[in-house]
Amino acid sequence: MGEVVECVPNFSEGRRKEVVERIVDSIGSVPGIKILDVEMDGDHNRSVVTFVGNKSSIQEGAFRGASAAAELIDLNKHKGEHPRMGALDVLPFVPIQGVTMQECAEIAAAVGERISKLLKIPVYLYESAARSPDRKNLEKVRKGQFEGLRESIVTDDTKYPDFGPRQVHPTAGAVAVGARMPLIAFNINLESKDLQAAKDIARKIRTSSGGLPHLKALGFDLKERGLVQVSMNLTDYTVTPISRVFDEVKKEADARGIEIAESEIIGLIPLDAVCDITARFLKLEQFDSNQVLERRIWC
Amino acid sequence: MGEVVECVPNFSEGRRKEVVERIVDSIGSVPGIKILDVEMDGDHNRSVVTFVGNKSSIQEGAFRGASAAAELIDLNKHKGEHPRMGALDVLPFVPIQGVTMQECAEIAAAVGERISKLLKIPVYLYESAARSPDRKNLEKVRKGQFEGLRESIVTDDTKYPDFGPRQVHPTAGAVAVGARMPLIAFNINLESKDLQAAKDIARKIRTSSGGLPHLKALGFDLKERGLVQVSMNLTDYTVTPISRVFDEVKKEADARGIEIAESEIIGLIPLDAVCDITARFLKLEQFDSNQVLERRIWC
Repeated sequence: MGEVVECVPNFSEGRRKEVVERIVDSIGSVPGIKILDVEMDGDHNRSVVTFVGNKSSIQEGAFRGASAAAELIDLNKHKGEHPRMGALDVLPFVPIQGVTMQECAEIAAAVGERISKLLKIPVYLYESAARSPDRKNLEKVRKGQFEGLRESIVTDDTKYPDFGPRQVHPTAGAVAVGARMPLIAFNINLESKDLQAAKDIARKIRTSSGGLPHLKALGFDLKERGLVQVSMNLTDYTVTPISRVFDEVKKEADARGIEIAESEIIGLIPLDAVCDITARFLKLEQFDSNQVLERRIWC
Repeated sequence: MGEVVECVPNFSEGRRKEVVERIVDSIGSVPGIKILDVEMDGDHNRSVVTFVGNKSSIQEGAFRGASAAAELIDLNKHKGEHPRMGALDVLPFVPIQGVTMQECAEIAAAVGERISKLLKIPVYLYESAARSPDRKNLEKVRKGQFEGLRESIVTDDTKYPDFGPRQVHPTAGAVAVGARMPLIAFNINLESKDLQAAKDIARKIRTSSGGLPHLKALGFDLKERGLVQVSMNLTDYTVTPISRVFDEVKKEADARGIEIAESEIIGLIPLDAVCDITARFLKLEQFDSNQVLERRIWC
């Protein structure tokens, strides 16, 4: 295996299966692209597609997805719980193997420029592809959503797009194109019905309250199961390892006399993260994914 | 990825690089074979080659390796610390993916029969390929080694080979062909100079003294580092997980007031074993290697 870039576009359509299929087909029509996952969410009226390719094919696949979304989705008719500003709403590129974050940022810029020119859609570069600090945060970039941005892109100078026209596309809106680390969605369920305890632990450990870096966390009630949950997103497992998060939640739970019932990893996790967990728990002096048999077979 | 069979032949030559290279080249000349690893050991005068293929190519690769070894190695001139009875000494087949242990035992029998017929070398089927209980254990099959077997194969009826002539090949000896699970070599180093403690812990946990199943263990002194080591081989991680072994050694060390300094995995480890460690330490309710991103990419 040579270089691998992952792309995880979010589209503002989670109900019409045939629309999502046409978008996925247009991405998958690029030679060398492999579709790994498609998640449709009806409540959010949003779909998340995960695909991989090399530095060249990933750009073509991403552009074809953007193109199909602009053709098939009319944001004026879109309603859903999730905030959004575009038919293709966000387009992150993720370094997996043999490619740097800097290169993913360059890919984001190249694809963003192409989308703006050929599809006439304004493009905001976010996170590691951002060209100014206030564009790093996706929530901030998307604030006001499609409806709000229609005005603010014209009136508010901080809303000037990185590429493309200073007006939203009439049906496809605007798009945030970025580069980021792989996300890991990790939940820990606590043997307790004390929702406040889960919320307190979440607040204690998350970045926004001064806890661990690159960690988002919320407390939830799992009423049907009689448990509470600390639900987390790790945005850089190389800085904050999962094992560290687990130990920290365990420490906080212990202090409250609460036991960990079980945990869960939602979706996919990079091999390096799994190897890192193994190495830390077993106190392995030296260990990396090159020692994994299948990696030798596949690569 | 379809079916994957691993083959890990041990050759009685660990010093003459050109000989090992010719053997490896003859194995690698089979289309579809991938050589994963070659380890030459001068003290043991022995080499271990690891390669993978499908159910068909693995047989051809194994036979070509046996053939090259018979041509290039003269056991009469071989000296080394490791016990051996053949130029190609042992030939295990290991199920990795899409193949059962039973199929690997059938492959072992087919390749063993071919070696016996075409190369005139007596073949003993061992471990999961064994056809009687006393052939399961490799050490027992190899007892007496090349020199001893020359006589006992004729005089001792328990030494009757599964295939081939009832006399050792004059230069290539005999070969043990088998099927087994992937081996995991795992060492735990203890923050102590007490060799007896390491030996006691090893005895306590290993199968042969009534400890954990599928576990070999010995205590060693790491004099230069001022540590002692419990050195282990796990012969079936699906029955005795590494995390269980780690916990058991930790418990025994704790009871003696000794801390674990670090541990090490020698060589390769199957992805499923790494995922199992991750799942157990994080108390993951449901987790398997299908959630590993790279597996989705490669398979």
